[in-house]
This record gives sequence, C-alpha cells and structure tokens, in this order.
Amino acid sequence: MPSVNILKFGVSSPADVTPIQGLLRAGYDPSQVLALIGKSEGNGCVNDFSRTLSAMVWEPMLPKDSVTVFSGGTEGVISPHVTFLVKEHGGANTGLLATVGRTRKLDPHEIGTADHAREVAVLVKCPLLTTNKLQEIRAAGKTPPTSDTYQSMAKSRYASAVGVAVALGEVAEGEVDAAIESGTTWSAAASCSSGAELEDCHILVLASSPEPGRLRATSTFMEDAIDGRAVVEALGEVNRDQGQVLQVFVKAEADPTGEIRGKRHTMNTDSDILSTRHARAAVGGLVAGLTGDTQLYVSGGAEGQGPPGGGSFCLVYTCPE
Amino acid sequence: MPSVNILKFGVSSPADVTPIQGLLRAGYDPSQVLALIGKSEGNGCVNDFSRTLSAMVWEPMLPKDSVTVFSGGTEGVISPHVTFLVKEHGGANTGLLATVGRTRKLDPHEIGTADHAREVAVLVKCPLLTTNKLQEIRAAGKTPPTSDTYQSMAKSRYASAVGVAVALGEVAEGEVDAAIESGTTWSAAASCSSGAELEDCHILVLASSPEPGRLRATSTFMEDAIDGRAVVEALGEVNRDQGQVLQVFVKAEADPTGEIRGKRHTMNTDSDILSTRHARAAVGGLVAGLTGDTQLYVSGGAEGQGPPGGGSFCLVYTCPE
Amino acid sequence: MPSVNILKFGVSSPADVTPIQGLLRAGYDPSQVLALIGKSEGNGCVNDFSRTLSAMVWEPMLPKDSVTVFSGGTEGVISPHVTFLVKEHGGANTGLLATVGRTRKLDPHEIGTADHAREVAVLVKCPLLTTNKLQEIRAAGKTPPTSDTYQSMAKSRYASAVGVAVALGEVAEGEVDAAIESGTTWSAAASCSSGAELEDCHILVLASSPEPGRLRATSTFMEDAIDGRAVVEALGEVNRDQGQVLQVFVKAEADPTGEIRGKRHTMNTDSDILSTRHARAAVGGLVAGLTGDTQLYVSGGAEGQGPPGGGSFCLVYTCPE
Amino acid sequence: MPSVNILKFGVSSPADVTPIQGLLRAGYDPSQVLALIGKSEGNGCVNDFSRTLSAMVWEPMLPKDSVTVFSGGTEGVISPHVTFLVKEHGGANTGLLATVGRTRKLDPHEIGTADHAREVAVLVKCPLLTTNKLQEIRAAGKTPPTSDTYQSMAKSRYASAVGVAVALGEVAEGEVDAAIESGTTWSAAASCSSGAELEDCHILVLASSPEPGRLRATSTFMEDAIDGRAVVEALGEVNRDQGQVLQVFVKAEADPTGEIRGKRHTMNTDSDILSTRHARAAVGGLVAGLTGDTQLYVSGGAEGQGPPGGGSFCLVYTCPE
Repeated sequence: MPSVNILKFGVSSPADVTPIQGLLRAGYDPSQVLALIGKSEGNGCVNDFSRTLSAMVWEPMLPKDSVTVFSGGTEGVISPHVTFLVKEHGGANTGLLATVGRTRKLDPHEIGTADHAREVAVLVKCPLLTTNKLQEIRAAGKTPPTSDTYQSMAKSRYASAVGVAVALGEVAEGEVDAAIESGTTWSAAASCSSGAELEDCHILVLASSPEPGRLRATSTFMEDAIDGRAVVEALGEVNRDQGQVLQVFVKAEADPTGEIRGKRHTMNTDSDILSTRHARAAVGGLVAGLTGDTQLYVSGGAEGQGPPGGGSFCLVYTCPE
Repeated sequence: MPSVNILKFGVSSPADVTPIQGLLRAGYDPSQVLALIGKSEGNGCVNDFSRTLSAMVWEPMLPKDSVTVFSGGTEGVISPHVTFLVKEHGGANTGLLATVGRTRKLDPHEIGTADHAREVAVLVKCPLLTTNKLQEIRAAGKTPPTSDTYQSMAKSRYASAVGVAVALGEVAEGEVDAAIESGTTWSAAASCSSGAELEDCHILVLASSPEPGRLRATSTFMEDAIDGRAVVEALGEVNRDQGQVLQVFVKAEADPTGEIRGKRHTMNTDSDILSTRHARAAVGGLVAGLTGDTQLYVSGGAEGQGPPGGGSFCLVYTCPE
Repeated sequence: MPSVNILKFGVSSPADVTPIQGLLRAGYDPSQVLALIGKSEGNGCVNDFSRTLSAMVWEPMLPKDSVTVFSGGTEGVISPHVTFLVKEHGGANTGLLATVGRTRKLDPHEIGTADHAREVAVLVKCPLLTTNKLQEIRAAGKTPPTSDTYQSMAKSRYASAVGVAVALGEVAEGEVDAAIESGTTWSAAASCSSGAELEDCHILVLASSPEPGRLRATSTFMEDAIDGRAVVEALGEVNRDQGQVLQVFVKAEADPTGEIRGKRHTMNTDSDILSTRHARAAVGGLVAGLTGDTQLYVSGGAEGQGPPGGGSFCLVYTCPE
Repeated sequence: MPSVNILKFGVSSPADVTPIQGLLRAGYDPSQVLALIGKSEGNGCVNDFSRTLSAMVWEPMLPKDSVTVFSGGTEGVISPHVTFLVKEHGGANTGLLATVGRTRKLDPHEIGTADHAREVAVLVKCPLLTTNKLQEIRAAGKTPPTSDTYQSMAKSRYASAVGVAVALGEVAEGEVDAAIESGTTWSAAASCSSGAELEDCHILVLASSPEPGRLRATSTFMEDAIDGRAVVEALGEVNRDQGQVLQVFVKAEADPTGEIRGKRHTMNTDSDILSTRHARAAVGGLVAGLTGDTQLYVSGGAEGQGPPGGGSFCLVYTCPE
C-alpha cells in the first residue's frame, strides 16, 4: 500500500475544480491522486445531482485508476469541500497508507444483495436503484430487493458494509448470505455511501503505517448519534500526540428504534426531511463543535457501519515527528 | 418574583398531555404552573400546526395567567418534550426565580416593528404574519414590514429581542426605532421564537435567586453555531458545583454571512430546508452530544439574541445544597 | 340510508370552526351532521398534525355517531375547506343518500393486513404506523407489514380499498388474503386516506338515490394522473343536466412504473417531496382548472382505488328538479 | 430571423445527452441548433444543480452562439425533456421564426435592477444571487436588491420581464426605473427563469412567420393558475387548424394575494415546499391533462410575465400545409 498525504480544500459549488490549483501549489501533481473524497451540497438522497455534477467535472482531471467518493448533504454547519489522497513523493513514509479499487459494474438486480457484498472491501461509494433501474430489473424478470428508491440506498450501503466485514475477516465468506438476510452485521471499519452517479463500487482503504510518520489515523465508532464521548476520546489521543486534526470520516444515522437513550426522536416520522439528512446535521454539529472545523466528511445512513443508531468514526491527524 | 421548580417530560405527540400526570406525581398541582415551555415536532416555520395543536390541548389545563411557549422543530436528535416552571410550595426558595406576562394583542401591522419592541421584555413567544394577516394590513392601507411569511418570523423575533434589551436597560427607550432600523442590536439574555398560534407575546423571565438554593441558572452565548467552547465552559461550571443539568435553552441560526469561521455553509441557499431547521439540527446535535440529553430547548432564528450566527444560551441545573 | 344535503365552506386554518356558523345559517343543526370531510393544509404524510388539530377541534362539536375524514395536503391550488354531509330535514329526498360507520379500533399489527381489509367498506379514513406503534408491535413479538412509516400509509389505504371491494361484492370474502398479498386488486368506488389521528377506520358511503332529486352523484375513475377526458366527461354529464358542481372526491397517485403514457415522471425519485404530495398538486391543478373550483377533495395515494397511477373520481352536483 | 424547426426528446437524467442522436436521426446537425430549452428535475430553486449539470454536459456540444435555457422543477406529472430549436435546412420556411442572444455578464449588484432590465428582450434565462455573490456585492460597498437568495430569483425574473416589455415597445425606455420600482408591469410575451448556472442572460425570441408554414405559434396568458379556459381556447385554435401540439411554454406562480378567485391557497405559507414548486405542479397538471403530453415547459415564478397569479402561455403546433 502506498504512503499518502491528505489535503483538504473548500469548494464554492459542486462544479468548482479550483482545488486542483491548491494541489499544485502544495507541490503535488494530479497524477499522484489516489482518491478524491468530497462533500457536495445536494440532498444526499436519490435525486442528488450535485454528486453527479462533481463526479463529472472531477473525473476527467484525475488518473483513470483513482477513485472518487462524493457524499451529498452538507446539512447544518457542514461545509462543502474535497479531500485529496495523494501518493507521497518518492514513496516517502508519511505514516498513512492507502489503496483504492473498483468492483466490476453491478447489474441493477445485484445492488443491495449478497452478490454485491462479495464485491467490496473500506470507504465505499456504491450505486442505488432509480425508477429506470427498477424497470430494467422487472423487465428482466427479476425481483428488486426493494421498490423504494430511497430504501435502495440503505440496502446498497448495508451490502457494501458486509463486504468490508468479509474483507477484514470479521465475517466468513460462507456467511455472506446470512449476513445480508439478517441485516444485523456491522463493521466499525466500514464507511459506505450510495449514489446514482455510479454503477460499480469505489473503494478506498486507509490505514496507519506500522512505521510511524507525521500523519496518523485513529478509528473508533459512535455508540449513538450523541456519543460525544467517542469524539472527545479521539481528540484526546490527538492532544496527547500534540497533533492537529486533518479530517474526520464519520457515519451517522437515525436510530431505527425511534429512540436515543430512551428518548423519542422524530427523524423516522418526518415526511418533509428524510432521516439521513437529519442525522448528518446533528452529528456534523457535534463533531464541528468539538473540532472547530466544518469541512468534515459526515455521511448519512450507517447500516452495517457501526452499532444501530451509531456509526464508524475515523480521524486523520498530523503530529510532530 | 416567585421561587420556582422546573420539571421536564417527554411527549409522544404534540397532542400528548400525559405529562400532567408526571406533574401530579411530583407533588405539584396544575394551578402552580407559571409557564409551560415545549418543543413540538413540526417544521418550526410558518405552517407548523404542531405548535397550535400543543397550545390548544394544554392551555385549558393551565392557569389563565400562566404562559405557554411552544417552539416547533425537533430536527436531528432533539426529542419532543415539555418543561414546566412551577411555583414552589409555600414560596420556599429553590434558587431559581421566574415571572411571566403577556403583552396586549398586537395588530398585524405592528408585528416586527418598534411598536412591537416596546411591548416586550426574556423568553418570548411572539406572532408572525400569515397570508391572511398580510391582506388585513393591506386592506387597512398599511404596509407590512415584509410580505414574506417566513421572513416575518425573523422580524418578529428581532423586535422581541430589542424589547428584551430595552427592558434590561441594554438599549435606551429612545433608541428603539434606531435599533429596529439597524437590525444589529443584540442581547444575550433574549430567547425569542415566533408562531402563528398567538397574537400577543408570551414572556418568561428566569433568574438565579440572590439567595442560593438547589437550582441554579447560568447564562452565556454561543459566538457561532459551532461554539463548543461556550457549552463546555457552562458544563464545567455545573461540574464544579457537582450539579446535574436540568434543561438548556439555546438559540441557533445560520450565519447571515454564509460562512462560519471563514468556511462556507449552505443553510442560506437550501431551498428544500429552511435555514432555521438546519441550525436547530446542528446546535441540537452539539448540545445533546455534550450533555447526553436530547430533551433540549433549541430554538431557531437568533436575530438580536446573540452575536450574528451565534445565539443566547441558558442552562439550568440542580446542585447539592 | 338517509337522504342528505352537502355544504362546503373554506377554512382559515386547521383550527377554524367558523363553518359551523355557515351550517346554522343554512338552516341545519350540528346534530344533523353525518360526516365532516376536510382538506387540511399539512403535508398529508406521517407527521401531518393539521389533521389531528382539525379532528380535535371539530369532533366535540359533532354527533358521536358521525364521522370525520380529514385528508392532509393542499398542494398547488387546492384550497383548505370542509364539507358537511347533513341529514335532510324531515327525511325529505335530495337525490343523494349517505351512511357512515366506524370499525373497532385496529391493533397496530393489523394495520394494512387482511384483518384490516375485513373491517371496512367507501370513503375511508384509516390509521398508519408511527415509530411508537412499530415498537409496540415488535414488543408484542409480532411483525409489522412494513417498518417504514410513510409506506404504512399506502399499506393501510390498500387494505381499506380491498375492504371496500369486498363490501361491494367486487372481491369474494374468501379472496381477501390473496388480494392483500397480490397488491393488484382495485375498486373505483374506494377513496381511502390514512392518518395518525385515529386508530379505527371512519367509513362514509355515498350513493345516488333511486328516486331522483336536486342532488346527483356520478362516479368514474381516472386512468392515469393526466386523464383529463374522464374529468371532461363527468362535467359533460353535469352540463347535460344543467347542473352545478358541488364537490369532487378524487384520488391521485404517482404511477408506480415511473412513467405516464410512456414518459418518465420524477415523483418516485424525489427525496425532497414525497410522491403523494406531487400527485395531489397535479391532479388538483387539472380538476380545479376544469371546474373553476379549488375547494376540492383531492387525496393522495390511490392504492387499490383505481387502476395503478390513476384513481377513483366521484362528483356531486345540483341540478334543477 | 431564421426559420426554425422544433424537436423534443425525453431525458433519463440531467446528464443525459442522448437526444443528440435523435437530432441526428431527424436529419439535423448540432451546428444548426439555435437554442436548447430543457426541463430538468431539480428543485428549480437556488440550489438546483440539475440545471448546472445539464448546462455543463450540453454546452460543449452546441454552437458557441446558441443559447441554453434550463428550467428546473418537474413537479407532479411534468416529464424531464429537452427541446431543440434548429435552423431549417437551406433556410426553408417552416412558419416559425426564432433568434437568440446573450447580454453581457451582469455584475451581481445589477441582478434584479433597472440596469438588468435594460439588457434584455423573450424567453429569458437569467442569473440569481447566491451567498457568495451577496458577499461580493457587500464587499464592493453596494447594496443587493434583496439578501434572500430565493427572492433574488423573483427579482431577476421581474427585471428580465421588464426588459422584454421595453424591447417590445410595451414600456418606454424612460420608464424602466419606475417599472422596476413599482413591481406591477407585465408582458404576456415574457417567459423568464433564473438560475445560478449563468451570469449573463440567455434570450430566445420566437415568432410566427408572416408567411405561413407547417409550424405555428399562438400566444396568450393565463389569468390565474386555474385558467383552464385559456388553455382550452388555445387548443381550440389547434383543432381548427387540424394541428398537433408540439410544445407549450407556460409560466406559473402562486397568486401573491394568497387567494385564487376568492378562495385561500397555501402556497405562500408552506415552509416545506416553496411556492414556485407548487405552482409548476398545479399548472403542469392542468396543461398535461388537456394536451395529453407531460413533456411541457412549465416554469415557476411569473413576476411581470402575465397578470399577478397568472402567467404567459405560448403553444407551438404543426398543421397540415
């Protein structure tokens, strides 16, 4: 796995590619880009064309074997931005390793199924089912896992998370079908978001190097959407290392029981704002308030990516070598 | 000002009045209620009928001279609930004082004006302009301060806040017109929310008693919507007193510049979710994550109620006597 | 079945009960009310508290054995209003007959099932599943027909429509389970809407009298959401009778295939506005444009109440005797 | 003005450029395109990135001096599509004439002002104010005409409509400032829509040729959003000519008085769905129901483009020569 640096830039719209200039000014060339991870300002749901727009303007500028992961939804204080993962010059050690890949294109009827889970492995961008794709499945005489386009996003994220769990040895290959069926498997290492702008899965694996460097990653999970303690502890680690936070990758969701710590929430009965939007806004507010940074990767819908109602949490920081 | 106790209960819907039983079980009678302050689960904007519904079911159960303050919008993790302020038995000191009042009914054309500001004084529930009221103003040959119903909510909150500032001596009586005109006055003691369910202003003044007791209130303001430090400091005070948080009253808003600490936010350009909803979700997420409690009074739209983009913050807690 | 008159009044908010004065002025007493059918201005989905508010203010004013049917959602040009069905003085023939009833309260786990279908019979208001009810079902060790609160509205409407089909002899009693399972049965006589404000089903049967009078009802169905021809033909009948339209009861839905006459629509992929809201707005626009009246009963979600993508259509009009 | 043909194609997403193949199959070359007019499926408001996406994928394929007019919002039954206006082969007469142009780029502080009005003249796509642009104006020490991004769309449309009125001699050059100030001027020949994806105004003038051909255009206006008579009369003209409707260009808005024909509507008090979305859905439903076609250009916000609450209406049809 190559050693990587991480650079973050604000964008003025989903079509803004000026961060490429920031990359150049920092001494990197677009050819060194392994992955581009962005938060774009659409609704983060089925008809979020800000994601498609960002993918369309960025992909021609980046290497063919790099991946893009655009997560829609900058509810509340979250600031639209992009994060580059670039291969370090001359392979010098930074302390942070990364690798990327893509699965084959999934047929629509495979999205959200065990077949889908077998194709993936840790920051994953995966497809969803639109009305057109649902028709395609039915025309082929097959049955979609759901006929609700918004729910297909959850199914797709969950199948991706099961794939991550398998890749990390947390779930055995032979148990994929059972895991998909049960809906209760989870891996704190998975962060999966779905979108209509792709038909394969984009995969990014991030890891601390066994050989320490100026960058470090620390991973944990939030027990629920108000788990400030998990965030405070991760920041405590940064402080002990006299480090500075570069980026946080966190998943958020509305607790499926309809309650958080025994108190009712209303995210699952709001027919005006879908639950993933609520969850991003709340968890984004918490993490921004504790880090002082609003350019955060907060992604909604944490099915299989942490305990129910919680979500995976990964923090990358610099520290004096 | 009478000495008061504070009791908080979850509700299962805006029509749920079962908390009256909790009040009775705690040994209080509805006749002791000074104020009922609730978060109801509508959109918190112009057409939020959850507020009207709550007012309608609760007001017949409470003393005529008590006030209700229902703030709509439980975005993100905020849990619908009601908070009673009740006069303590036999006037015994609790450490917390409160008094309530109402203005005369405002004529529609007065809402959001200097006339409105002259009528008020610290937790204020104030009216807004509906289409019907706009027509009434025009039919009377007068000019409404705005013809946008959502903006009338902001105008009404701001006029209420100026009224609070005058009552506290922060603004001179003779400067009311100028303050209304400028739009830049603010008081960290003001918490104002507007609604279509009333035509007068409901006012609640809360203060720590000079004579300490088992309850305390501490007030500050958030500099911006991610001012975690203000929250952490207030909680530090509670910890020093070995206390426990009972309730937080906090105002939240989208920074009108479109940026928070130099980074763009998208709350003011989102045509699907109005900015007050975003702001409540984010600040609610932060305060819930730090207090571990989701039954919080987080109200959106902090015009004149703290620095622009921030908001007033008041925390009530118990401490060992 | 008693002979009835029909009276329609605009309302200024979901809490407006002034139409009772219109009823009195027309010479009727509230004790003569058989049914009150209203369009209230909430989102018409799960968290529509305008319906609850209307039910709460109206029900104490009406006879215990009358029914209320409040349908939320006045998207587009639809105007909030209420329609009274009142028993004619002295049982005089008006040409229009009606009868009402209620089922027993349904247990949450029965909503949207064959048990639900067995309880009903033609304008039906039926319950839905909230987060609380879902928990109740699970706590009892039972399985809800869906865990999505918005989808539970569709399941409930469909079960009601199957009930109507059975009552009218369109479906045999023994085929209820199969009809619920298939999801493809429909009756053009059914108009069903669901809400959180009730736990039983409210039922209203409307029919033309065999003995003609000054009121007539004509029923048909729209083949799809743009079936202007069905509306024009019904209006042609009114014209031939030199009549005047009093009220239209129409159901609307987004075609589940994602297309109307071979052209794509976007109602099923819009994550900002749920499909029932789109459908009401469009069909309301069509019927209002053809009748010149915006106080229409247009209700969203026509599962089992007409061909897929279409909906039942009933028009009541006066004609010279 | 060149003689033009008109071709319409459905799209599967805002990024779908396959209609170019339909154009080629019909025997036209992209170099013949004068204008591309599309309905894309975003919210049609400030943060509608479907418009930007469509502009981005289409503009590189079309002549530099052609214009694009993308109008967001396919609420209700409206089907996403694009309409080409192409110069007829060899300048042969079709009966329909068109010409296009662009203004210079407007400075942000000019948007929605008299300066803006002086630049335009009949189907106009014009810019809006985002948060960034508002800051730019203020940084330059100037005052924006509004600080509400959604309202800036209305201001921009109105200024464009005044420009059209001037160009057609309906308003004198010297009265532009007064017309902007009053807000009450209108031209039934204007159809203006605003978007964040451009900084100049795109202008398309469409006219029937004095020399008749196989295409004809007929223009009128809707008196209000339920003016079915205007639509029926236009269709009557088509029938008399034994023609077939090719496309309808219609503007829709929520009546600013809050009433339609004396009955209240709720489009101006809905804080979940902005009024332009409601208006498109309703008028789209009416026109689709009468034409049987859902691929309609229905654009929201008709300030200055017809009587208040109504909107301009233009129908293009083929007829046997």
